[in-house]
Amino acid sequence: MAGKVEARRDALRKTLIDLAEVKVTEGGLTAVKARELAREAGCALGAIYNVFGDLHDIVIAVNGRTFVRLGQAVEASLEDRLQDSPTDRMIAMSEAYLDFAEANRNAWRALFEVQTVAGVEAPDWYHEQMKRLFGLIEAPVRDCFPKMPEDDVVLMARALFSSVHGIIALGLDNQVSEVSRADMTRMIALVIGNVTGNR
Amino acid sequence: MAGKVEARRDALRKTLIDLAEVKVTEGGLTAVKARELAREAGCALGAIYNVFGDLHDIVIAVNGRTFVRLGQAVEASLEDRLQDSPTDRMIAMSEAYLDFAEANRNAWRALFEVQTVAGVEAPDWYHEQMKRLFGLIEAPVRDCFPKMPEDDVVLMARALFSSVHGIIALGLDNQVSEVSRADMTRMIALVIGNVTGNR
Repeated sequence: MAGKVEARRDALRKTLIDLAEVKVTEGGLTAVKARELAREAGCALGAIYNVFGDLHDIVIAVNGRTFVRLGQAVEASLEDRLQDSPTDRMIAMSEAYLDFAEANRNAWRALFEVQTVAGVEAPDWYHEQMKRLFGLIEAPVRDCFPKMPEDDVVLMARALFSSVHGIIALGLDNQVSEVSRADMTRMIALVIGNVTGNR
Repeated sequence: MAGKVEARRDALRKTLIDLAEVKVTEGGLTAVKARELAREAGCALGAIYNVFGDLHDIVIAVNGRTFVRLGQAVEASLEDRLQDSPTDRMIAMSEAYLDFAEANRNAWRALFEVQTVAGVEAPDWYHEQMKRLFGLIEAPVRDCFPKMPEDDVVLMARALFSSVHGIIALGLDNQVSEVSRADMTRMIALVIGNVTGNR
């Protein structure tokens, strides 16, 4: 019996994440509403809070999926590139990030909005995913700066991620700097190229 | 008579911006609510829409003030620094930006959230303020790269602004990368220093 209840809980959990994922994809974080999810899942409103602590937990679960897809996209850009220069590898990863952000605009934005909205600590797996992503950047940073202290390698990888993120976030998300795709690509190449001495 | 009506309109306009500025400072963009503003200004709800097209216009006016203060803070960081190296000047401006963002968290965030919320074109003065800010960065970029084509100087200045913005936005606004003030300062120095060859 316990197994059956558990299985039903897991099925509802998955259904709710699936539904919330569609909402986030179509309308961003604010489109996730408990009442609508319950109606579409065919469950009582209270049932949602039996499987998730609150709506925030569902959004975090959606972000978890987005993060996995983002990591896969960035990693895929390195395939057949192990012989490329560190600069070229970093630019390839940056462009994969840009492609992902463009193709998954709302889900990508939700990754960075969720903590701000809720003001609660991000879960462990979130930090681990982020660490994994930064790890992909640390490798070419080490190749570029073989004498750089490890503390700085870690900060440089984070700084370069943040730089590329900043170029893309400002370029895609508002009209502050009105940046075309070609200009974003050039900006990424200018920063990464000059930081790494085009190695 | 026309002058008197005009003066009253202007006074209400200023009162509403003052009140909205306090709201944005205390609670961000979502804290600006027409009904509350009308109550606090002692005017009818409809009167707001006689002086502003909609709530979005009030928020844009608040952002205008924030932008002026931000520009002044960044410019002030260059005082007595004309003899400093371009790298040092860019780092000084970046730290002024970090100071401003930290001290004006909500108002600063509102600068980048407003267009996303409304989905309308930013006004001309917005672009002009942004151009002015980028202009401050273009000068040391030119000093660092005397042979760089002007198109690239413009893009490099925007890229460096976006990079520093990305480092600060991710560092301050959520727990994705858990960055301390000291680490943010180091990340800025690593990116700016390496891009400019520490000149």
